[in-house]
Parts: sequence; C-alpha cells; structure tokens
Amino acid sequence: MTGREEGLIRKKVAELAGVSEATVSRVLSGGGAAVKEETARRVIEAAQQLNYVPSALAQRFALRRSGNLGVILPMLPKVNLFSTYYFSEVLSGIGMTAKQRGYDLLLLFREPDEPRNYANLFRMQKVDGCIIIGAQDVPSEREALAELKEGSHPFCLVNQRFEGETYNSVDADQRTGSSEAVKHLLEQGCRQICFLNGPSVYSNSRDRLEGYRQALEEAGIPFLPERVLLGNYSRKSGYMQAKAIATLMREQGIDAVIAANDRMAIGLLQGLKEQGIKVGEDIALIGCDDSDVVRMTDPPLTSIRVPFFEIGSEAAAKLLDAVAQASGEETAVSPFEIKLPVKLIERPSSMFDESMNA
Amino acid sequence: MTGREEGLIRKKVAELAGVSEATVSRVLSGGGAAVKEETARRVIEAAQQLNYVPSALAQRFALRRSGNLGVILPMLPKVNLFSTYYFSEVLSGIGMTAKQRGYDLLLLFREPDEPRNYANLFRMQKVDGCIIIGAQDVPSEREALAELKEGSHPFCLVNQRFEGETYNSVDADQRTGSSEAVKHLLEQGCRQICFLNGPSVYSNSRDRLEGYRQALEEAGIPFLPERVLLGNYSRKSGYMQAKAIATLMREQGIDAVIAANDRMAIGLLQGLKEQGIKVGEDIALIGCDDSDVVRMTDPPLTSIRVPFFEIGSEAAAKLLDAVAQASGEETAVSPFEIKLPVKLIERPSSMFDESMNA
Repeated sequence: MTGREEGLIRKKVAELAGVSEATVSRVLSGGGAAVKEETARRVIEAAQQLNYVPSALAQRFALRRSGNLGVILPMLPKVNLFSTYYFSEVLSGIGMTAKQRGYDLLLLFREPDEPRNYANLFRMQKVDGCIIIGAQDVPSEREALAELKEGSHPFCLVNQRFEGETYNSVDADQRTGSSEAVKHLLEQGCRQICFLNGPSVYSNSRDRLEGYRQALEEAGIPFLPERVLLGNYSRKSGYMQAKAIATLMREQGIDAVIAANDRMAIGLLQGLKEQGIKVGEDIALIGCDDSDVVRMTDPPLTSIRVPFFEIGSEAAAKLLDAVAQASGEETAVSPFEIKLPVKLIERPSSMFDESMNA
Repeated sequence: MTGREEGLIRKKVAELAGVSEATVSRVLSGGGAAVKEETARRVIEAAQQLNYVPSALAQRFALRRSGNLGVILPMLPKVNLFSTYYFSEVLSGIGMTAKQRGYDLLLLFREPDEPRNYANLFRMQKVDGCIIIGAQDVPSEREALAELKEGSHPFCLVNQRFEGETYNSVDADQRTGSSEAVKHLLEQGCRQICFLNGPSVYSNSRDRLEGYRQALEEAGIPFLPERVLLGNYSRKSGYMQAKAIATLMREQGIDAVIAANDRMAIGLLQGLKEQGIKVGEDIALIGCDDSDVVRMTDPPLTSIRVPFFEIGSEAAAKLLDAVAQASGEETAVSPFEIKLPVKLIERPSSMFDESMNA
C-alpha cells in the first residue's frame, strides 16, 4: 500500500467511525494523546470493515519485537530489594549492557507464591529475552523454565544451575571461593572451621558448601555436618546464630566461621560482639560478596569478592546475542554456561596476630 | 466477528500465506514461539488482503495499554546506579506499588547527552505513565516535560520542581531538613557553619541551601556565601573539599559542616581524617539521606532522614491514579505536588561533649 492509498483509506475509516482523521491516526499508529476506549473501539471496527490493517501496526507484529529485556526478580518480603548489594550490582550490569544494545529493561517482580508464568511474557510480546535472578530449584521453577526452553524463548539464569538441565547461565565460581577461604584460614592457624550457609534451593549454597568440604578434606581435616549452620542470607539469620557459635567455641574450640554472604556475616559479627567475643582475635570471620559495607565494619571483614556487575553485564550481552540469533539476524549462538572467577579479599576479621599462633 | 468466523478467516489467511494455521495464530495473536520475520510479513500481508484484523491485536490497540510504568533514570558515568542509596530506595518504593497495582516497571536509562524524547515512549505505547528521577532544570528537560504535558501523558517528577510550572511531583521537605540541621548544630554550641551543596540544576540543592540560610538568619547569624562549598553529590567531591574545610577551620574558626548528601559527607569525613581532624571533636559533621552506611562510619554520622522508599511508593500510587483517570476509568484526579517530611537523626558526628562547650 502506498502512502497515498493509506491516506485515502484512513479518511474513509474516519468517516465511518464518525471521528477526525487525526483520531484515526492516534488510534491506529499510536501517535499523540490517548483516545477514549470507546472511540478507539469504533475506529478499530471501522478499519476492520474497510479491509485496512495500518502498516505501523502490521510492522510491529511482523517484527515481533518489544525492544525490552525482561528481568525477573523475587519480591522479597520486608526487604527493599534494590538496597541489597547483590541485586543492585547485577541489575546495574544488566542495565548498562542493555542500554548499549538499545534495549530497555522491564523489571518483573514475582511474589514468592505467585505462579511462574514466564512464557506468557513472550506470548504477550512484553520482552524479547529474559534474565531470571533468584531462581530456586523447586518443581514450579523447573516447569516454567522447561516451558521457556520448549518455546525457544531466549532466557538466561544468573547465579543458579539446575542439575540435569543445560540452560544458559552466568555464575560465579563459588566453589573455588569457599575453598580459598578455608585455605586462608588454615594459613592463619585456624583448624576448627564452621560454615554458615544459605538455603539449598540455591545452587550457589550447594557450591559454596562443596568448596568448603573439599578444601577441608584436602587438608586432612574431617568434614563434620554439625559444623554447618543454616541461615537464609538475611542479616538477622546471621545474628541469630551467634549463640550457637559461642557454644561451639566453648565446647569444640571453634576458631573460625565462613558465612555464605556478607549480610549474614555482619549479623553474626554483631551477635558475637554482644556475647563479648572479639572477631579477629577470639575467632576469625569471613563473609562472601565483598559488598560495600564490609570495609566499614569493626573490624573490616575479609570477604570473597564476586563480580556481580560483570555477571549481570555478561548475562545481558550473551542473552541479547541469543535474541538476535532467534530472530534470524545472526548465525547460531551456542548455549552458554559461564563461570566468572572470584577473589578472596583479606581484611582484619581473619588476620590473626603471629602471637596467637604461637 | 464470532469465534467461528475468526477461525474460518484464519484458515484462509494460512492458505494464502502458505503456512500452517498454527503459524497464523502465532503471528497474529502473539502466542507460542517466535516466527521468522519473513514468514510473519507474509502472514500480515495475507491478513491485509483478506480484510482481517485479528481481534487480539485490535483489542490491544483499542485499549492502548502497555501495562508498564516507565521510570526514566540518568545513566551516571562510572557509578553503579543501583548501588546508590537514593536510587535504590526510590525504585524499591515504585516497584512495590507498581506490583500491587498490576504494573510492570520499564526502566529507561538516559545518557547525559541523549535527547529527552519522553513523549515518544507514550506514542510507541511502551508505557502508560512515567516517573522521572534525576530531572535537571535545563532547557531540554523543560521542553520534554512541556511536550508530555501538552500531550496529556501522565507523568510525575521525583525530588524535583520547576519554577513557574505545576507538574505532578513527590518530594521531601529538604528546606526544613537543612533548617533542623542548623538548629541542632546551634544547640551543640556551633556558630561557624559551612554548607557543602550539590549542583543547583536540582531544586533539592536550592531548597537545602535556602533552609540553611533561613535558619542562620533566624538565629541572627549572617549568611556568608563563601561558606557555601560545591560538590556534585559524589563521595570524591566531598573528599576533595577536606583541604578547603581545614583551611576555613584555621582561618575562620569553622566548627561545623552540613553536607547535602551522605556520600559527600563520608568523603569529607575521610579527607578530614587524613588531615588529622577529628569529626565529632574538632568539628561537627551532618549528612543528608540517612543512608544505610552512616551507622557504620567512624564516628557514626548525624544525618537527615529522607523517606525515599515512601517517595517512590507515593509517586507510583498517585501517578497510576492519574493513568486510570486519563483512560476514563476514574473521575478526574487533581494535579499533585506532594512534600513528605524529613527527620534529623542524631549520631556522634555532631554530638559535642559538654566539656567542649564549656
């Protein structure tokens, strides 16, 4: 259809619907101010009667592009989501890369008990690809991901693996991180090391535990399940374990704790202080994430630096490659499972004086 | 058109385009997996020839709804955007309320020198309403906002006013905040108070300065422009002013500084420490935002608590009321200019010993 033909038919649509041509343009091309629902319906009906599919609309559907990169996030109760270092960094990395590639970011908050209807986002053309943060290894999640894969919808997991499945993912080498933490503590003269982990629905929890177990065994120190305590990655859950740690110190001579994230480590630090226990003197403590606050605690916390910004950035870059491939613009992109390295950052919370080891 | 009629015409479209009926459904209703661009175009052309506007598509355009709440954010160079307390809190508040109202959040990052083409977001049906964070009082911003208003596109500013314009906005009472900070310092015995402000393109900077000036004058203390220093709200810009403050302490007996945000206050604290100046003893220091880190600095920082989460939440709630009104679902919503109260939280950085005042 030429521009002139399109102009003529729009005029007819306007007459039939009893509205101005400007209104027809607004409804059918989506330009200008909003139009009342009833008016819009009248225009659409007139267009249908007159055999007219506006080309802007046709194009949109032909291209099947939203220009949006979806990010699915858990809506954590009583937590201001973006205030947590983890989500902030990952999202910043995703946002920066999406922007460079000309994509906007659609944030999709998921309530804990809400159905995981991820494939619908693609069916409704809300997103061209999606990154899933905080995925859990539970049946409903596995189902939703299987549906995405079956529909060939491009998606990528961040910091999560599913045993037996090969999904696109970008993760950190958490296993090596925990191993390095154990080795560092052994060098400081520690021998009785506890591990404060998060829930095992996150593969990162399982990986960290595995690294801890393996490093102990390599050093000829038996792995004792009762030295693995459980929190839920919140500060409070770390704080709540202070009494248990104090008891283990008295009864079993525990001399170090590795916490699976900084928030639990900071909570534990506070709890231990209240018990009169000095971290960095009476006991060593290591966190994980190397978030911005660990430099400011007293004492500053040794922590495993995880490149969250880079994880987000890499996930967005690889996923948008896959999106381009799915829409036929690029040659095939192989599925990807990327693991970025982590690094132990030593600070006073785990640096014992020579005198202590004497 | 009945469901049966629609089925028949879809069959014809499929024949004409030389594809399966399932493919026609996928293209025209947006269900299932993506379809190659060329195939989609063939289906669209066949539908046009056969006088067929699929009802799902018609409905979408009739309703003119994206289900997205847009959030326009500055892409700050070299800053991980979400790591900053301000953006994190505001976004969490917006996200929580949007979710409750059934909206998704579309984040739109704006480069500093990028054209501010906000109205296009509505024309392209990417958003139903939009919140603008970090708006600056510069001509291009004023133009873009005027265009939004002219097009009756629902929008809301956060923490920004434009003199001479009445735009929907949610803000904090920064003026009273600075006034309270000055009064608190006067009670502590301080008399020579500096103000470290941010750029005046932000109305919040101007409001804070005005509160400082007014409280001084009410106390009969002259306002001296040379005691107002300028940063850019970054930590580094606060750090850079430490030498200037040290000089003012020696030469003019400066005994307190109010910084217009916590990040500058923390930078200044670090800089002063390096100069051998003890905050809370040699000089009082007050920040603004009451971000999570001010409890952890040494000494902990007195700061003006700004309810950023509530600001975001309120902005989203009022804006979505306006969106409902614009689409004719609700009776008229008046334009809103909301100011939420702030509160001074006292900590050791500004609490002088009695002995000091003796």
